[in-house]
Amino acid sequence: MEQTVDVIIVGGGVIGCSIAYHLSKRGIKVRLLERGRIASEASSAAAGMLAAQAEFIDSVPLFDWARQSRAMFPALTADLQAHSGMEIGLVQQGLLRVATSEEDVLRYHAQAELQRQSGESAQWLSAQEALALEGTLASDVYGALYLENDHQVVAPSLTLAYASAAAALGAEIREHSEVQELLREGGRITGVRMQDGIHRCQQVIIASSIWSQALLRTVGYDLPLYPVKGECIAVRTNKPLIRRTIYTDNCYLVPKANGELLIGATVTPHTMQRHVTVGGILALMGVAERLIPSIRGATWIRTWSGLRPQTPQGLPYIGNHPELAGLMIAAGHYRNGILLSPLTGSVMADLVEGIELAADLTAFQVPAMRWSKDQEMTGVGI
Amino acid sequence: MEQTVDVIIVGGGVIGCSIAYHLSKRGIKVRLLERGRIASEASSAAAGMLAAQAEFIDSVPLFDWARQSRAMFPALTADLQAHSGMEIGLVQQGLLRVATSEEDVLRYHAQAELQRQSGESAQWLSAQEALALEGTLASDVYGALYLENDHQVVAPSLTLAYASAAAALGAEIREHSEVQELLREGGRITGVRMQDGIHRCQQVIIASSIWSQALLRTVGYDLPLYPVKGECIAVRTNKPLIRRTIYTDNCYLVPKANGELLIGATVTPHTMQRHVTVGGILALMGVAERLIPSIRGATWIRTWSGLRPQTPQGLPYIGNHPELAGLMIAAGHYRNGILLSPLTGSVMADLVEGIELAADLTAFQVPAMRWSKDQEMTGVGI
Amino acid sequence: MEQTVDVIIVGGGVIGCSIAYHLSKRGIKVRLLERGRIASEASSAAAGMLAAQAEFIDSVPLFDWARQSRAMFPALTADLQAHSGMEIGLVQQGLLRVATSEEDVLRYHAQAELQRQSGESAQWLSAQEALALEGTLASDVYGALYLENDHQVVAPSLTLAYASAAAALGAEIREHSEVQELLREGGRITGVRMQDGIHRCQQVIIASSIWSQALLRTVGYDLPLYPVKGECIAVRTNKPLIRRTIYTDNCYLVPKANGELLIGATVTPHTMQRHVTVGGILALMGVAERLIPSIRGATWIRTWSGLRPQTPQGLPYIGNHPELAGLMIAAGHYRNGILLSPLTGSVMADLVEGIELAADLTAFQVPAMRWSKDQEMTGVGI
Amino acid sequence: MEQTVDVIIVGGGVIGCSIAYHLSKRGIKVRLLERGRIASEASSAAAGMLAAQAEFIDSVPLFDWARQSRAMFPALTADLQAHSGMEIGLVQQGLLRVATSEEDVLRYHAQAELQRQSGESAQWLSAQEALALEGTLASDVYGALYLENDHQVVAPSLTLAYASAAAALGAEIREHSEVQELLREGGRITGVRMQDGIHRCQQVIIASSIWSQALLRTVGYDLPLYPVKGECIAVRTNKPLIRRTIYTDNCYLVPKANGELLIGATVTPHTMQRHVTVGGILALMGVAERLIPSIRGATWIRTWSGLRPQTPQGLPYIGNHPELAGLMIAAGHYRNGILLSPLTGSVMADLVEGIELAADLTAFQVPAMRWSKDQEMTGVGI
Repeated sequence: MEQTVDVIIVGGGVIGCSIAYHLSKRGIKVRLLERGRIASEASSAAAGMLAAQAEFIDSVPLFDWARQSRAMFPALTADLQAHSGMEIGLVQQGLLRVATSEEDVLRYHAQAELQRQSGESAQWLSAQEALALEGTLASDVYGALYLENDHQVVAPSLTLAYASAAAALGAEIREHSEVQELLREGGRITGVRMQDGIHRCQQVIIASSIWSQALLRTVGYDLPLYPVKGECIAVRTNKPLIRRTIYTDNCYLVPKANGELLIGATVTPHTMQRHVTVGGILALMGVAERLIPSIRGATWIRTWSGLRPQTPQGLPYIGNHPELAGLMIAAGHYRNGILLSPLTGSVMADLVEGIELAADLTAFQVPAMRWSKDQEMTGVGI
Repeated sequence: MEQTVDVIIVGGGVIGCSIAYHLSKRGIKVRLLERGRIASEASSAAAGMLAAQAEFIDSVPLFDWARQSRAMFPALTADLQAHSGMEIGLVQQGLLRVATSEEDVLRYHAQAELQRQSGESAQWLSAQEALALEGTLASDVYGALYLENDHQVVAPSLTLAYASAAAALGAEIREHSEVQELLREGGRITGVRMQDGIHRCQQVIIASSIWSQALLRTVGYDLPLYPVKGECIAVRTNKPLIRRTIYTDNCYLVPKANGELLIGATVTPHTMQRHVTVGGILALMGVAERLIPSIRGATWIRTWSGLRPQTPQGLPYIGNHPELAGLMIAAGHYRNGILLSPLTGSVMADLVEGIELAADLTAFQVPAMRWSKDQEMTGVGI
Repeated sequence: MEQTVDVIIVGGGVIGCSIAYHLSKRGIKVRLLERGRIASEASSAAAGMLAAQAEFIDSVPLFDWARQSRAMFPALTADLQAHSGMEIGLVQQGLLRVATSEEDVLRYHAQAELQRQSGESAQWLSAQEALALEGTLASDVYGALYLENDHQVVAPSLTLAYASAAAALGAEIREHSEVQELLREGGRITGVRMQDGIHRCQQVIIASSIWSQALLRTVGYDLPLYPVKGECIAVRTNKPLIRRTIYTDNCYLVPKANGELLIGATVTPHTMQRHVTVGGILALMGVAERLIPSIRGATWIRTWSGLRPQTPQGLPYIGNHPELAGLMIAAGHYRNGILLSPLTGSVMADLVEGIELAADLTAFQVPAMRWSKDQEMTGVGI
Repeated sequence: MEQTVDVIIVGGGVIGCSIAYHLSKRGIKVRLLERGRIASEASSAAAGMLAAQAEFIDSVPLFDWARQSRAMFPALTADLQAHSGMEIGLVQQGLLRVATSEEDVLRYHAQAELQRQSGESAQWLSAQEALALEGTLASDVYGALYLENDHQVVAPSLTLAYASAAAALGAEIREHSEVQELLREGGRITGVRMQDGIHRCQQVIIASSIWSQALLRTVGYDLPLYPVKGECIAVRTNKPLIRRTIYTDNCYLVPKANGELLIGATVTPHTMQRHVTVGGILALMGVAERLIPSIRGATWIRTWSGLRPQTPQGLPYIGNHPELAGLMIAAGHYRNGILLSPLTGSVMADLVEGIELAADLTAFQVPAMRWSKDQEMTGVGI
């Protein structure tokens, strides 16, 4: 049984679903193939921060992309609601980047200055001012950088809304649909093989996070990617502990619109072991307790983890494969997939349409072919 | 250990939490006592329809209250968000009261005429028109009454938001706090007894659904109330099956903003047996399948049930006890607690403040004292 | 509607269900009334240790009862299986009471001597010997008392099996059936009032843990009982960390037959607040980590809590009420309800039958009537 | 990073875990790689019937294997308990193959005769006799074949116990460890590639259910396998509805030792769509209700599904690959993996050791190399 479609997207996370949504809006026929359920990996584990300023304080290309992507959320919220009936939980309360040392204070001051030069709001608050905004903060913090436009959404809701809106616009969303291998004819990728047979298309888009690597290897291409595990905790109180996201280098606390407070996240590179560990929980809660001492009285709700896809340069791969025609990649967004999903989806759709790109892709180029010794050994050849 | 407060509210469902919120907004010191968790009974089982027109098609006093209460939701949504940071999931897509017989058609036409005379929108759709709006409806329906202002919210979110906003405004919200008995001194209710001792107050407000009955019996007062069990199912599809609530006499289907479709509800009076039964599930799905045949392909998510508090007259009790000073009651809202909660909370707060009421309470009077033989037998006296 | 039965048992925890099972075995017609689900409170929160020797090291009456009750488990396991088809998860691996100080060593040596004089096995292990048995123990422990007969069962399974066997033997088990008040005629308790009406019987047995107090107060009787909250954690590893229960004064670790390791329990008296708190989790894990350092790598599964019913003397109430005919009580087993349930159920059945008791009840007498001022104030009289 | 070990097993279902356990018992160093969690697919979805006689009524080779494997369970139960501390829930109550037509009666009589000739117990019961054993059976059944030795275990418990015992015996059990491709050097399989690098070994054993297919295709080998989805439901009653497994062609009901009654299973071939569907639930409950009418009053607990691995001949593949040295396969056990796991694991260990096999493998041979056109097209070659 063979089936054909314009574009096949592999991966039902936030990036794949955003691409499906943007392509469907432009009338392009899409089939999205997800091996598990939509939003079942990192896209449902994420805290949903749109921390364009807090996260990318030192990275020029990502800072620009992140700000441009963040600006798309208000219109996106309305459009996804119109097509899917779903809400993505946009909360516009901003973020406090809390300083816990004198070094932090100096560093944040400098960064705030740069951000203001870029036209962004970044206001320094003394410890007293920070406590006036969030009274449960530990009294020994050194102040905070108030980033009033670093908002948040509900990560799984956003992903499901992309998928549902895409489906309403004509996309096929297939869950429990694992791609076994890519099909290559000469220098061109022409489709995928599934358990139920061959699916052919004009373009295959790989948006499968770290699982992109194994899939691309079926055509002998070795994409450098590695997992970074993150563990999280949710607690709740009847009276909200905080109203704004509290953000430090080691821990963030995100108050959600359902009354839960999300605490994230550990950073364990190079492991696929998704178990939430006792050690991870203890480390995370230790930091959270120092930032918000009264969290000791909060109600424990649940824990979970996710695997973020990281690249050696710390920059995602977005765009056409430089050698294999018919193959596009959008992967490696590390812990910024939620924030970067609108612009990534839009630019990928620009590429498929062959029109002018909404943003510059220079920094995010897909690397050229790498041949691994092992591949040759097992006899795979072009 | 004795503790005092202005007002004690017994019951952390949607009615008790709304009263706590309205009183707290007016600066009155409230303690809300809930024996389990906030929103753990009917308030979390409800589908969240604001079906003022669909539900109260034949009841004059409830119809007026329901419309007035429904109109409060937009402002309420914003105010709860401002105080608690929580969203209540207001979806404004309206409701189709689907006719499945010629009798339905005649009946709905007459009702629509009456509703239009009351200034409400109520538009008759032919089967063809109904199918144009909701393409998955069974092709043999007889048309539908389109009630474009019968919206919906997320029932547990509303209840939690009331509680959280009340707490932010100064109320004490105590979960796992079961009242053992009311305290009566002469003709006055002066407080409650808890496991941790006596709590005194100026006013005790009973908003404990069917559990109000047992509590009021501790002072020899027998309030006629009985439970009506309702069982529900949630399913989901990647592409929404419907966008508007589908409503018939035996079954409603409510598409939620998280992508789930709620199917409710069975009606089993005079039982406290909350188990979801095999028979209930089969009966409910049978009707749902006739309305939306393609629901057979939907993904099964979960089932649950709740106990609605009903009264012999079918009207809730709202207001002061006619004989016992210091005692107020708000109970018996049957399956309309979500919809009626804003106005009930507001009018109860009017009563506590002793100001002019926002709505007429004549139809909802708390009945005068009834003496049960058994009470006398066990020796309880005033 | 009135209904009659020989015996009404109020409470579907492990004590009430054991009584129902023992009475049903003797052909007595029982109706058990449980306000929630069977085993929904402390009986499902318990770790299921049969720690007759570890727990009652200093209490003569409980030590004797506990040993006699513990000895009943092998035959009980088989009989419950025969009647219900259910397994109670008896694991016979014993328990290590681990010493973490020199004081512990001296204390345990003395206690071991006393236990051996009672004919029980109690073997002192040096640190090296303890580590030979359980290699993951911290290397700085001071040794352990090996109690090879302190086994364990699965607490909710035991409770459900009692209920199911009782039902198979003819008992009525009614869940979601809350007793509103006891009926008293003169000096006799004659039945209970439920939402659905009056239920009459020859004997009412109260086995409702801390909720016994409020129920008994409906006839003016004030039974001293208070809750002691306990929080617990379950983790798991693919390779078992330990094979025997590890027990200290502050923390126990119980390896279950489903591969989970239960870690319990905090001790917070005088609160009904069942929330699992961040602070409780951190305290508990801190101790567990010192006992089994490699637990840091274990997978976090879940947390929960329960309320243990404690009495001022630390001894349960078991037997007839000294003044009110027709009323029996079995409550206040603190954290030993699982272990004491076979003998408690059996002796209560002896009392109902009026035959010689299987064990001495002198230490566990139900106290005589106490009059609280508040009760008089509200006018309740005999 | 390269790692070496004697044997790598791919797949942490009941077959892979049984092989790991049997190899570890024989002192062979094993690494088991599971891409998700142990027992996360069909092995946890199974009802756990050991229906050697009921299932294989018409298949000579499977009937013999099934009986031989079934006979291993008592000793296995004890050995797994000794090594892991885990219980597998063996319940020895037999099975009723219920006839619902005259044709069934004739067919079962003939089969019973054949089974008795094989030395098995197979007793025909009239409708009246069947109802005497299981009083809740529908009164219009045509009788039943009583297979008193077709017992049951708890499927996920068995799988976890194999894994835990293997770990205790020295095996490495690695969850969240997905194999990306097999390594082939000439005509030999020499290891696997993981996200964390190359793992080398003497033998690779593929026990990955339907996912075996994609993995084997990475070396150009196309193993015919397809998924057959099964949906299931669990309900419960306080008093057991049945004590023995009730088995028909379309539906079975298995009373578990935890008090739940499992109802299975739909049969939907050639789909990976694991969603439990509304239609599947309705179909299954319809049959169950005809067999046990009083099931309508049972409490609904939950639903789930699994994918059974089926082969074109309906026989599993067990043994060495006929051409590729170093490669063994044990896959395609359809819905009999639980029952066949002891013997499969034991025989696979025999093969690894090179000793005489405990059972004849002729019927279960792994097919010789098949070349798919697509493989050639994508350029994979030896």
